[in-house]
Amino acid sequence: MNVLVTGAAGMIGRKLVARLAGDGVLGSEPISLLVLADLVEPEQTEGAGSEVETVAADLADDGVAMQLVASRPGVIFHLAAVVSGEAERDFDKGYRVNVDGLRRLLEAIRALGDGYRPRLVFASSIAVFGAPLPDVIGDDQYQAPLTSYGTQKAIGELLLSDYTRRGFLDGVGIRLPTICVRPGRPNAAASGFFSSIIREPLSGEEAVLPVPDDLRHWHASPRAAVGFLLRAATIDGDALGHRRCLTMPGVSVTVGEQIAALREVAGDDAVGLIRREPDEEVLRIVEGWPRAFDARRAIELGFRAESDFEEIVRVHVEDELGGRIARTQA
Amino acid sequence: MNVLVTGAAGMIGRKLVARLAGDGVLGSEPISLLVLADLVEPEQTEGAGSEVETVAADLADDGVAMQLVASRPGVIFHLAAVVSGEAERDFDKGYRVNVDGLRRLLEAIRALGDGYRPRLVFASSIAVFGAPLPDVIGDDQYQAPLTSYGTQKAIGELLLSDYTRRGFLDGVGIRLPTICVRPGRPNAAASGFFSSIIREPLSGEEAVLPVPDDLRHWHASPRAAVGFLLRAATIDGDALGHRRCLTMPGVSVTVGEQIAALREVAGDDAVGLIRREPDEEVLRIVEGWPRAFDARRAIELGFRAESDFEEIVRVHVEDELGGRIARTQA
Repeated sequence: MNVLVTGAAGMIGRKLVARLAGDGVLGSEPISLLVLADLVEPEQTEGAGSEVETVAADLADDGVAMQLVASRPGVIFHLAAVVSGEAERDFDKGYRVNVDGLRRLLEAIRALGDGYRPRLVFASSIAVFGAPLPDVIGDDQYQAPLTSYGTQKAIGELLLSDYTRRGFLDGVGIRLPTICVRPGRPNAAASGFFSSIIREPLSGEEAVLPVPDDLRHWHASPRAAVGFLLRAATIDGDALGHRRCLTMPGVSVTVGEQIAALREVAGDDAVGLIRREPDEEVLRIVEGWPRAFDARRAIELGFRAESDFEEIVRVHVEDELGGRIARTQA
Repeated sequence: MNVLVTGAAGMIGRKLVARLAGDGVLGSEPISLLVLADLVEPEQTEGAGSEVETVAADLADDGVAMQLVASRPGVIFHLAAVVSGEAERDFDKGYRVNVDGLRRLLEAIRALGDGYRPRLVFASSIAVFGAPLPDVIGDDQYQAPLTSYGTQKAIGELLLSDYTRRGFLDGVGIRLPTICVRPGRPNAAASGFFSSIIREPLSGEEAVLPVPDDLRHWHASPRAAVGFLLRAATIDGDALGHRRCLTMPGVSVTVGEQIAALREVAGDDAVGLIRREPDEEVLRIVEGWPRAFDARRAIELGFRAESDFEEIVRVHVEDELGGRIARTQA
């Protein structure tokens, strides 16, 4: 089977590709060819028995989508997206990539025809939901996004379901929690602090916390996200019925509980590196975000996240720090 | 103020235009120019003091949307759409008209800029909801359409809300009930019988009923639909908050209750003209449709439908039959 990954150079994309290339199989099927696409050339990856092809191109450009599906991949992971902050800053770019890029991909699949009906795994987001929200959000929550990114993902979900219903492809959309702990350097995203208050102290560096300790949010690790994608690739589509998009499980914790988990794993010295600097602007943005979900459908369908935030911290230490925690003087 | 109506040659469009041209005002503002657009040339209408301009063009074609908003209409009624059955038969045409046509309109408004921020009234549909559905559907129902038409309308709602949130326009989307009694000849739509079992007997003609008497559905008259559009044009947008789309009120009745209302208005002879011819295919389609709504938000915002189905029948007799009912031998 051939496999296509769009957005392969992104954080989740790279982790997914490493897993696919390492396994050499997806479900029970050997991967013959792994096509990795992104705006920038994805890293060359050594495939365990799979041929690997990299493509640097914009999915929304003429002909690119047709080129990407030419090998008739049996599974397509569509991760390419303009992220939340950028989609809000650059209205046109967000629609171009997040809506038109997806439509180009869907149309390219449909155009191949001849019985071609791949599994398309679409990375959606809990940003499809917007305030006012219940404390715990069920699988039947009204989709009222409050960002352009959330709007674009909600449109993607609708398209995925309709193309699936019409028999053009076999889509599964998964709404990812906030991914925590994100590896790498701090970024300017409003959600950045959720990761940095764990990541920086574990590396012996200071981190800034702009919101109160009682702010609650919904998390899963990068490792869990890769697990969701693999599960979505291999699940029986008929089990989903007409509703092809699912809220993924996650861990609902307050910032205070995140910090307590950090203390369990790395001690008081690490916690001492968190500096509280309230920021009304950041608070205003994240206050409207979901706090917890009852992701019953996904759990019944075998999707698994961490069971608590301490596990999320330990996953970061294992996967990113080689099991080592920096020792510091607080 | 200038007013633009797209889909002006359609059934609701013609009734809306007749009302606007007759009133010469919208809310408290005199209408200077009424621009009527459709694929086919809309009928010339005598405006009470308003200039009237008709345009036969496809909104999804290059330049058409810019032409339509060139007069900077303060209110735009966007009714142009490929209907349910056609959007299901012709996948490309449905997306072209119902999604791309709307996007062209939104982008043309945005491109004018310079403080231009018109009220855009978007005719959506209860088809944005799909089975499984509760008996009475609330304002927070998950949008899971089961047709391409419903998908396209749900995408339209999302776009309308996002463009409004971004300040490019001031959108209000209204989800119309099934319009009953539709004037004119029987058509091939699966929903056609809801109207024909009333309309044909009132004109002394036979009608076919393909579903059981206990099938329940959600209706409002063409007159009520025009009232919804006018209300949506003049309502205070801030009262809607971020959720710019509303389910309109209506009347929830079984087919048996529709027939009882016909009997009240036109007697047993009229009812005798209904011939029961069960059709499994039609039943399968309409079974998944909404049966009733709790349209609380819209009612609080001053939207009004008929209070029972007998009123819907009487509205048809007044508006379409000049108050006269055909006398027949049963």
